[in-house]
Amino acid sequence: MENVMPHWLEQRAFLTPDRVALETEAETLTFRDMNKRARSLAAYLNQQHGIKSGMTVAFLQENTVELILSYYAVSYLGAIAVPLNIRLSAPELTWQLQDSEATLLLYDERQQQKVVAMDIPSKVERCHINNIAYEEIVHSESLKSEINMDDPHTIIYTSGTTGKPKGVILSYKNHWGSAIGSVLNLGLTVNDKWLACVPLFHVSGLSILMRSVIYGMTVRLHRNFDPVEVHQAIMKQGVTVISVVTAMFTKMMELLEGNSYPETFRCMLLGGGPVPQPLLKSCIDKNVPVYQTYGLSETASQIVTLSPEYMVSKAGSAGKPLFPSQIKIVDEQGQEVGAKREGEIVVKGPNVTSGYFKRPEANQKAIKEGWLHTGDIGYLDEDGFLYVLDRRKDLIVSGGENVYPAEIEAVLLMHPSIEEVGVVGMKDEKWGRVPCAFIKVRPGAPYTDSDLQMYCRDYLAKYKVPQRFITIDELPRNASRKLLRRKLVERLPKELQ
Amino acid sequence: MENVMPHWLEQRAFLTPDRVALETEAETLTFRDMNKRARSLAAYLNQQHGIKSGMTVAFLQENTVELILSYYAVSYLGAIAVPLNIRLSAPELTWQLQDSEATLLLYDERQQQKVVAMDIPSKVERCHINNIAYEEIVHSESLKSEINMDDPHTIIYTSGTTGKPKGVILSYKNHWGSAIGSVLNLGLTVNDKWLACVPLFHVSGLSILMRSVIYGMTVRLHRNFDPVEVHQAIMKQGVTVISVVTAMFTKMMELLEGNSYPETFRCMLLGGGPVPQPLLKSCIDKNVPVYQTYGLSETASQIVTLSPEYMVSKAGSAGKPLFPSQIKIVDEQGQEVGAKREGEIVVKGPNVTSGYFKRPEANQKAIKEGWLHTGDIGYLDEDGFLYVLDRRKDLIVSGGENVYPAEIEAVLLMHPSIEEVGVVGMKDEKWGRVPCAFIKVRPGAPYTDSDLQMYCRDYLAKYKVPQRFITIDELPRNASRKLLRRKLVERLPKELQ
Repeated sequence: MENVMPHWLEQRAFLTPDRVALETEAETLTFRDMNKRARSLAAYLNQQHGIKSGMTVAFLQENTVELILSYYAVSYLGAIAVPLNIRLSAPELTWQLQDSEATLLLYDERQQQKVVAMDIPSKVERCHINNIAYEEIVHSESLKSEINMDDPHTIIYTSGTTGKPKGVILSYKNHWGSAIGSVLNLGLTVNDKWLACVPLFHVSGLSILMRSVIYGMTVRLHRNFDPVEVHQAIMKQGVTVISVVTAMFTKMMELLEGNSYPETFRCMLLGGGPVPQPLLKSCIDKNVPVYQTYGLSETASQIVTLSPEYMVSKAGSAGKPLFPSQIKIVDEQGQEVGAKREGEIVVKGPNVTSGYFKRPEANQKAIKEGWLHTGDIGYLDEDGFLYVLDRRKDLIVSGGENVYPAEIEAVLLMHPSIEEVGVVGMKDEKWGRVPCAFIKVRPGAPYTDSDLQMYCRDYLAKYKVPQRFITIDELPRNASRKLLRRKLVERLPKELQ
Repeated sequence: MENVMPHWLEQRAFLTPDRVALETEAETLTFRDMNKRARSLAAYLNQQHGIKSGMTVAFLQENTVELILSYYAVSYLGAIAVPLNIRLSAPELTWQLQDSEATLLLYDERQQQKVVAMDIPSKVERCHINNIAYEEIVHSESLKSEINMDDPHTIIYTSGTTGKPKGVILSYKNHWGSAIGSVLNLGLTVNDKWLACVPLFHVSGLSILMRSVIYGMTVRLHRNFDPVEVHQAIMKQGVTVISVVTAMFTKMMELLEGNSYPETFRCMLLGGGPVPQPLLKSCIDKNVPVYQTYGLSETASQIVTLSPEYMVSKAGSAGKPLFPSQIKIVDEQGQEVGAKREGEIVVKGPNVTSGYFKRPEANQKAIKEGWLHTGDIGYLDEDGFLYVLDRRKDLIVSGGENVYPAEIEAVLLMHPSIEEVGVVGMKDEKWGRVPCAFIKVRPGAPYTDSDLQMYCRDYLAKYKVPQRFITIDELPRNASRKLLRRKLVERLPKELQ
């Protein structure tokens, strides 16, 4: 039998119409309000742009009410949302837009310049979401009243170690599995209010939205991360849960100095890599309920979480899987290894993607018998706690964004002055790590660091542009001429390694 | 792809081994303890009785640790649990045992006499659960590490308006859907402790057990409902949630007189029919958080729940469906009717059974395109709140147990002195309603009320035995000679109607 559910927003607006769905600086929307506006936008997109079931619709929007409405409207039509990272360069965005086969690009006023710079195929319609009057549109009959849980909800692009980014398909079932796994771990009260200051175009922000509609929970939405505003929201606005990455967390702990959060603040969900020990210690002193997590776009956000009670005894661990999910460590032959043995982290569960959009080969390689091979390296201790040693080969996590060396290297190799290049992450106080490029320059070719940075900026998001260039005579390679990026890291000054 | 999950108890014991799973007067078990004992019992049942995947195992047990272990052990083997109602008569039990095709009957010390009285086929093995030493058994390899969500977990017998009881098949998916729908409505905290004083052989008690393992929540188990003990447990033992039926609720409100429950007590989940208005009013005065519910064995417990904030404004209503579930009201042609129009209640959702055991005809009649026809009559108001008017045709709800007139009538018709009979419910202060039989006696045939009661007792559970017999010259019937039980109700004294 089909695995169906009532449409989440429709059901939520029916069950708890008067609960607050969203709170921003400017406005407060109940689930009834949200539903009314989302249905009108859906009807508009259907009538004006012909959006219907199975089509993909790309978003280029900041954290605003309109982005949330876009997600719900597209879902009401049975179409698939493709949230694009607004920090990407125009060429990067163009590529993802085309790969996703989007028929419509929904963008907001702040992204207009970028849209102009993009090379958008003529068949892709554009819609400036702040310029349309959809609120009075009569509801269309084409709105879904039920969800088929196996249908795709989102395609989220993620870069890999090699080649172009891949679109991770996340079904309703994946988002549901994630939200349910989270609630069974973190609990739920009627007073919960989750602060979203991470981007809604990433799975970390999107998953907050999914929890909101499934739990009937208020989201407090910030346009971006402003540490003082976030601090104030926790201290005075009744925020009970927040999602942050390490760089944000550090700032927040500075602001908390000598103070503590209200008792109702019950969860700081912390992703994006390990937390320095001294910082963790200060959390214990200040009684901050930190839940460290490990997750991927492919797992619809967190899949492994460490409860605060293990913060000290299992320091450095990402924790245990959520209830419906499983992890194991395998060797290169795919065989499970014992406790304390390093290997690849593989994961399984209702929250795990069934595959990448139009990538049968990548899917065959990554997903075996329901187990997703993450490419990340780690081990389990004797109690089954996960320790992540290396994010996917050479991944640089910079302020919560994933940066893949291969992508940056590909751009620099197109520059006429550069013969060879290897990119690694170097330590940075603010962002955790930032890219650094080792370059072999063609004999006598002209270049300056700022030239190269401007060149990169044409193709890459700002956070991917190397902050330092180091010349090198020969790049370290193995016998089969494969670049050994770890050897490059060793050449960095000690304090930057 | 298969819809699988790690085995719930195994996963729970892995994730939160030290949390308390069960608390009784005599002992306290963590999830680690529970898992260890359940695995040993599973190994025992596999090795000594050959229980394996797909087999059915009947339970005839009270609310004890052993019954809980039986559920988990049978699940570990991929076998199906058939919990029998210990209040049924030996012939009733024999019939269900045979219909379920059970290969083993697991009973406890208090049921020995009943087992002796049953006519158990020789191929059904018997196991006195208090007499076996299973705790040191080495774990068998035949224990499941994963659950297929579509597999059956339980077969629970339920009587219908006509004919023999039917076995409702409840899959893991059904129990999961029920537990998740409930947590999204009621919330969850790490301090939750759910008091089970309703029978674990009913879906109301079993669903508490399912929530316990899925949520990682403590169950406080009482052998039966003793109002003073329950009162004490809420006042002093940290109970936060309890499931009760109306008759129990009345007793508890008497004991609470002039007092109130601790603030941490957050939910009184109340099933088994509407609550008298004066009683509800006293709850408001005493600040008792009552959640009225409507549910069936077929929906793996509650499917519709009324939150306390609507207790007054929607008095008499059973509430709105749980988040993953849907209800509608249909007319005799199966067409959905508008607000405030009476009709049959039909339900849909992940918690709804896929059908009855070995009853293709009943299934075809009851389940259409995923919608289960409950046979209950009700309407939805303009806000979508459900009002239940009549439980399945002529159903008598007596102290939370369902009593079907047809079953009692069939027994009385076998008595040589009785020519015709019609059974209805009459009001009872303690039980809500109890059966009353209108009988047409054969001319000159001898009988006394106590004769007839003793006769019934041979075939029927005690709570099904009519408490009063009223002679009648002619039973009211319609043109096609169908008994009109409602006309009989009108013949009862006003105060008993």
